[in-house]
Amino acid sequence: MRTGTWLIGARGSVAVTSMIGALAIRAGLTAPTGCVLETPALRERVRPGIGDLVFGGHDVTSVPLEKKAAELAGSGVVPAALALAVKDDLAAVEQQVRPLPAAATQAETARAIAADLDRFRRDHGLDRVVVINVSTTEPVPPPHPAHASLQALRTALSGPQPGSLSGSLSGSQPGPQTGPRTGPPPGVEPVLPPSSLAAYAALSAGCPYVDFTPSTGARLPALDELAREQGLPYAGHDGKTGETLVKSVLAPMFAQRNLKVRTWSGINLLGGGDGANLARPGANAAKSASKQRVLPETLGYLPQGETRIDYLEDLGDFKTAWDLVTFEGFLGTGMRMEFTWHGCDSALAAPLVLDLARLTAAAHRAGRSGPLPELAFFFKDPLGEVPHGLAGQWQTLCDLVTDLATALGQEPTP
Amino acid sequence: MRTGTWLIGARGSVAVTSMIGALAIRAGLTAPTGCVLETPALRERVRPGIGDLVFGGHDVTSVPLEKKAAELAGSGVVPAALALAVKDDLAAVEQQVRPLPAAATQAETARAIAADLDRFRRDHGLDRVVVINVSTTEPVPPPHPAHASLQALRTALSGPQPGSLSGSLSGSQPGPQTGPRTGPPPGVEPVLPPSSLAAYAALSAGCPYVDFTPSTGARLPALDELAREQGLPYAGHDGKTGETLVKSVLAPMFAQRNLKVRTWSGINLLGGGDGANLARPGANAAKSASKQRVLPETLGYLPQGETRIDYLEDLGDFKTAWDLVTFEGFLGTGMRMEFTWHGCDSALAAPLVLDLARLTAAAHRAGRSGPLPELAFFFKDPLGEVPHGLAGQWQTLCDLVTDLATALGQEPTP
Amino acid sequence: MRTGTWLIGARGSVAVTSMIGALAIRAGLTAPTGCVLETPALRERVRPGIGDLVFGGHDVTSVPLEKKAAELAGSGVVPAALALAVKDDLAAVEQQVRPLPAAATQAETARAIAADLDRFRRDHGLDRVVVINVSTTEPVPPPHPAHASLQALRTALSGPQPGSLSGSLSGSQPGPQTGPRTGPPPGVEPVLPPSSLAAYAALSAGCPYVDFTPSTGARLPALDELAREQGLPYAGHDGKTGETLVKSVLAPMFAQRNLKVRTWSGINLLGGGDGANLARPGANAAKSASKQRVLPETLGYLPQGETRIDYLEDLGDFKTAWDLVTFEGFLGTGMRMEFTWHGCDSALAAPLVLDLARLTAAAHRAGRSGPLPELAFFFKDPLGEVPHGLAGQWQTLCDLVTDLATALGQEPTP
Amino acid sequence: MRTGTWLIGARGSVAVTSMIGALAIRAGLTAPTGCVLETPALRERVRPGIGDLVFGGHDVTSVPLEKKAAELAGSGVVPAALALAVKDDLAAVEQQVRPLPAAATQAETARAIAADLDRFRRDHGLDRVVVINVSTTEPVPPPHPAHASLQALRTALSGPQPGSLSGSLSGSQPGPQTGPRTGPPPGVEPVLPPSSLAAYAALSAGCPYVDFTPSTGARLPALDELAREQGLPYAGHDGKTGETLVKSVLAPMFAQRNLKVRTWSGINLLGGGDGANLARPGANAAKSASKQRVLPETLGYLPQGETRIDYLEDLGDFKTAWDLVTFEGFLGTGMRMEFTWHGCDSALAAPLVLDLARLTAAAHRAGRSGPLPELAFFFKDPLGEVPHGLAGQWQTLCDLVTDLATALGQEPTP
Repeated sequence: MRTGTWLIGARGSVAVTSMIGALAIRAGLTAPTGCVLETPALRERVRPGIGDLVFGGHDVTSVPLEKKAAELAGSGVVPAALALAVKDDLAAVEQQVRPLPAAATQAETARAIAADLDRFRRDHGLDRVVVINVSTTEPVPPPHPAHASLQALRTALSGPQPGSLSGSLSGSQPGPQTGPRTGPPPGVEPVLPPSSLAAYAALSAGCPYVDFTPSTGARLPALDELAREQGLPYAGHDGKTGETLVKSVLAPMFAQRNLKVRTWSGINLLGGGDGANLARPGANAAKSASKQRVLPETLGYLPQGETRIDYLEDLGDFKTAWDLVTFEGFLGTGMRMEFTWHGCDSALAAPLVLDLARLTAAAHRAGRSGPLPELAFFFKDPLGEVPHGLAGQWQTLCDLVTDLATALGQEPTP
Repeated sequence: MRTGTWLIGARGSVAVTSMIGALAIRAGLTAPTGCVLETPALRERVRPGIGDLVFGGHDVTSVPLEKKAAELAGSGVVPAALALAVKDDLAAVEQQVRPLPAAATQAETARAIAADLDRFRRDHGLDRVVVINVSTTEPVPPPHPAHASLQALRTALSGPQPGSLSGSLSGSQPGPQTGPRTGPPPGVEPVLPPSSLAAYAALSAGCPYVDFTPSTGARLPALDELAREQGLPYAGHDGKTGETLVKSVLAPMFAQRNLKVRTWSGINLLGGGDGANLARPGANAAKSASKQRVLPETLGYLPQGETRIDYLEDLGDFKTAWDLVTFEGFLGTGMRMEFTWHGCDSALAAPLVLDLARLTAAAHRAGRSGPLPELAFFFKDPLGEVPHGLAGQWQTLCDLVTDLATALGQEPTP
Repeated sequence: MRTGTWLIGARGSVAVTSMIGALAIRAGLTAPTGCVLETPALRERVRPGIGDLVFGGHDVTSVPLEKKAAELAGSGVVPAALALAVKDDLAAVEQQVRPLPAAATQAETARAIAADLDRFRRDHGLDRVVVINVSTTEPVPPPHPAHASLQALRTALSGPQPGSLSGSLSGSQPGPQTGPRTGPPPGVEPVLPPSSLAAYAALSAGCPYVDFTPSTGARLPALDELAREQGLPYAGHDGKTGETLVKSVLAPMFAQRNLKVRTWSGINLLGGGDGANLARPGANAAKSASKQRVLPETLGYLPQGETRIDYLEDLGDFKTAWDLVTFEGFLGTGMRMEFTWHGCDSALAAPLVLDLARLTAAAHRAGRSGPLPELAFFFKDPLGEVPHGLAGQWQTLCDLVTDLATALGQEPTP
Repeated sequence: MRTGTWLIGARGSVAVTSMIGALAIRAGLTAPTGCVLETPALRERVRPGIGDLVFGGHDVTSVPLEKKAAELAGSGVVPAALALAVKDDLAAVEQQVRPLPAAATQAETARAIAADLDRFRRDHGLDRVVVINVSTTEPVPPPHPAHASLQALRTALSGPQPGSLSGSLSGSQPGPQTGPRTGPPPGVEPVLPPSSLAAYAALSAGCPYVDFTPSTGARLPALDELAREQGLPYAGHDGKTGETLVKSVLAPMFAQRNLKVRTWSGINLLGGGDGANLARPGANAAKSASKQRVLPETLGYLPQGETRIDYLEDLGDFKTAWDLVTFEGFLGTGMRMEFTWHGCDSALAAPLVLDLARLTAAAHRAGRSGPLPELAFFFKDPLGEVPHGLAGQWQTLCDLVTDLATALGQEPTP
């Protein structure tokens, strides 16, 4: 039941927090607070457990995990004592984190990534390896004809084009490309954005793929075809950790009470590497779009207002979001609601990464392939036709857990 | 299908807003915003419709409905143009609002109330009359042995004790008892609190009873016995219109995400008659208890913190509530959420009164008797073993609507 | 002592609210709430009084004042009863509101404006006319060499260039230029932005000029020269009515307590004509810059963070602003403060317009010419070297009132 | 210039934070953020400096300073590294903290306290010792005839009555009296509340006295007489560290803008020893009264609303306060403001304790005796007829600093 958890962006805050947490939980040093599969309703129903997860990953940066752990302790994301207690285990994970390969063509880069995944699986005798993208958000890529079918994609990938994954596949701060970069002259667009090349490589290597970011990932017809061909499940997009989580319970409340939402505006102030990246217009636009989707889906109409994202370096790993909702009740009476959410995104995301690794591995074991819409509970911008209210997503998740437990011969909780 | 809606506290803000609204909706002057049975999911599935409701009621005060309507228009609860447009229809309702009877014993008072209900049904040729308590909150009454069985209750009610319903059965401001008061010397406790005497009278007269307040109402073994004997449904307690509504979606969110809520504190600042009454210690305690119940029921534990209610005359019919939630995530990281709710209680409650009249009438038609736990969606402190998260309550309500439609031979929406 | 108050943008919300208010106060129908010169500390010390003000103005739109008054009543800015009570007086003002002139050159346009001002003064036998710009915000204009001296300006204005004032000199919604437009082919930049052309015309006609907007107005060396030549005072810029007002008391508090402000971020959500205009990038940038100035001036450094302005049509004349301040105390302890301001900009601005008309007129009477930095209390972006904390500005204002009272032989209040 | 700073409640959070801070600042390890006398406007104008302060004190509890320092580090009030760095210096202070004496009469107890003060002064060769009460708040004491004159007080103190200072003179958690308790049988009220007995002892020993709490302290005619007789200054009451600080800048803003405040309500949620004590009705009442005083003093009237204080153990040393202000502008338009303050009371209070020690010592040196109303800037409930707006208090403080610098022959900053 030993299951690989390969993190793209393995040296970033979310990745390192999830590694430290998993190691500390396994060592009995802390409770699995924030892990959805450890709520009373779902506890002990999904295998692998947290203790079965074996970590590795890729990153374009080379900051040591131990240094990142110290940063996280300094900024209050991880208790210093815990970081210290799992130091040796984290050093072992360090051996499994590799620089992101870069080759002359995207096809060759993908082969190099797949080779890394394969070696990780063999070296550790793992049943399977789930690849999870927790790197920073990329801009929406331009459309490309090769996205439409697997055959077209395979042909295009072998042609001359930039072979490296861009700097956005870093778990931490964006910046000038630090890894090697080869390939055609500047100006030639790559066929796949980095997240999708990673998905292509993962699926080619027989690994389920999860995108925790709003990036494109496996969300292309050609990659869906590949997943089904390989018998692999995939999931995404964009972990739902703060303001959108709250929206996904408030918006259904307004809808069920037949209260008409007139405006819904929000601003997210955040620091950290994620904030720095989201201050870039392309990534910002991708993220904001993802955050608004819940409103029309649950209300049935789109109220006035926008969601802003501003970078405030000084806030560090914490984020403050403020939303104003104005609504109309009986006989047109105007009313309003405001909320402020002050959360630590890494601490909110990391336990979900553990849940997703476990659920996706179990789905793979149970023979699922293609998208996993039942994981909508975890995402801002879920795959497939799914409920967008959190309560409906929760029910769907509970049903999935029951189905997997039945399929895998586990004893369902009474 | 003409259905009586008899409001205890008929001259108060909630009652008059619901009357004006029903009249205006029937006349096609406004949309049924805030009416749950008019959401796309439930529309046209429950009969009677809003247009089938015929209003009457009791109140201890004598302020004319027209005057109350003008007050509501002045304070922004009801558009002045709407109040004007339904003026004649409201004058017709005025004829059906009677002073609350008061006699030498509670048994005689109950008979007088029942006689009023009976006359209302006969005069208007109504299929049935639903009695809904929208008067101000009473303190929790002392226990009395006669509450335990119907027989003991009937015996006790005929004995010497204060016969009148106390001043709390007013829809508007509390104050010195203005109606006639007869009976034994001061110091002798009445057998039933006013809301329960009203429930006793309603059930005796063959009318379903709904308590929209936190008062005791039908929630006594003796009255449950009476309801079953009479084949009548009853429902309650305490309409969920603001802060508690929000709690009922946020608390499940924290629970499902396995985030540990450390503290949940709130303050409600409100004016209006309801605010003035809730400034009284007894009523305040009854209300605060009702407001907290959702937390242990959905979280599985009671976090630190209290819900305060303060009266601010100047806020009029509007209420501002502020809540602070502190919670703990992965590895113990502390986070927090605040929300402010600025709502008009009368505008939030009035459409629910219409929904409850329709649903209770339909349940009666369908042969239901005893408590209606499926109406938990509407209440802070629902009857029976029910879900306390709003989403679960919504599902239960939808199921009830389907069951009633089936039972009553209505075409279910596909 | 009859004093003309000529409003540029006379058909906008601020202008019409100030007219209605002045007429209602003069008629004894309402109290002068919001008028700074009517606080106990300053009452009856400045003449002219509110009752001495005679209104007129220019606007590029032609919506009747009565219609605008009805709109303001509908949206809760002005009580409907008051609007009705001053209807006849407002109809008299309507006669004094003229379309904004437009001619072949800016010189000719200015002459036409000055002629209007002159006629207004003569027709009403006014001691003086104060011109106040309450039209919508213009973008920051490109620099022009003729701004540097009065002589260069006069030469340039007579040359071939667009003669009309652009659409931004409207008190209400921006939109396609509705007035006549003549002059050189498109692409030739006018010498002066509209607000400065209005200032040029006012000063040329012997009228003090106040800019209640962030637009350029009299803030050019050439116009300062003109004001001094003519012996006229001028004032500005950008009425301080909401979020910036609060900033101007909170920032000094942090400074005096030696608390280090790390970040100060804000978002302003507003509807109305002002909001629609500020949604345009140029105007937005001009406004945001004006709003931030208070921080470095009072703190001595600029903390991280920005002030956003978003247009939400549905909010109407009301505005909601939210600010987050994070700060550091003793031994580096991190703390935070948030505030929400929900105000009606027109209701906040209108009484200040009356104050400014009175103060500027009194300053003119007392022989003041050039900028009036003592009016910093009223502005986000005041002229001259002045205190930026509200308390210092208040003291400066009180001193000015005393000086003017002394100079004008009025009895100072003991 | 070595100046004793004797803290009543020396083992509490405020005291230990101020000790650690002073030691760390003296060692050049941190900046004096939060110290008012270290703002650019006042820097280097008052002697003694922070480095001249020598700490000692009394407490009824016996928790070691080092343990308290560890607690403060654990809860984020003091950086762990700083606490470690000043460990040895703090151990030296530990030698100067003594158990609060308790004897058969209050007169004897006062003599024992005075003896401790005297020994501290002699042992360290101090110029003077300032006594500052930072213990927890006591209830308002019943009036006693001996409070009216020094002679009556001296007589009464020697009579039979409880001699010990009650448990409230602890810097940390309240609880059952732990120290020795002697004297008359229960039920005999002591002549002086503990804070006033401490003031009596301090003044008798020739030490200026400052009350940082809302307790009675030196605020009795008999003690004022004693201070003047001894030529000693005294100051108080109730350090202004959070919500009231904000009120003291916002209330003048509303007043100066002639905006009518209709309601001002607040709730303070706080943990820590202070919170536990303030959950007791007597202390709560004393504190709430102190917090409201700023409103009528600055507005000229008392708006509706109350300030609540609730204890939430889980918040630890941090406090969250929320205030709602509703106000009326021009033509009666209703508007509103909310703020949330999330601060660490110990971190806000501790630097002010250093400021007060320095200022009171300098005032003593300069020959001041009796109350020091010029220190109103620091207090919620200041002594004497003083401005209540923060800006006026700041000006008064700046003037005092200049006067003291002149009197003491220091070079005023240009």
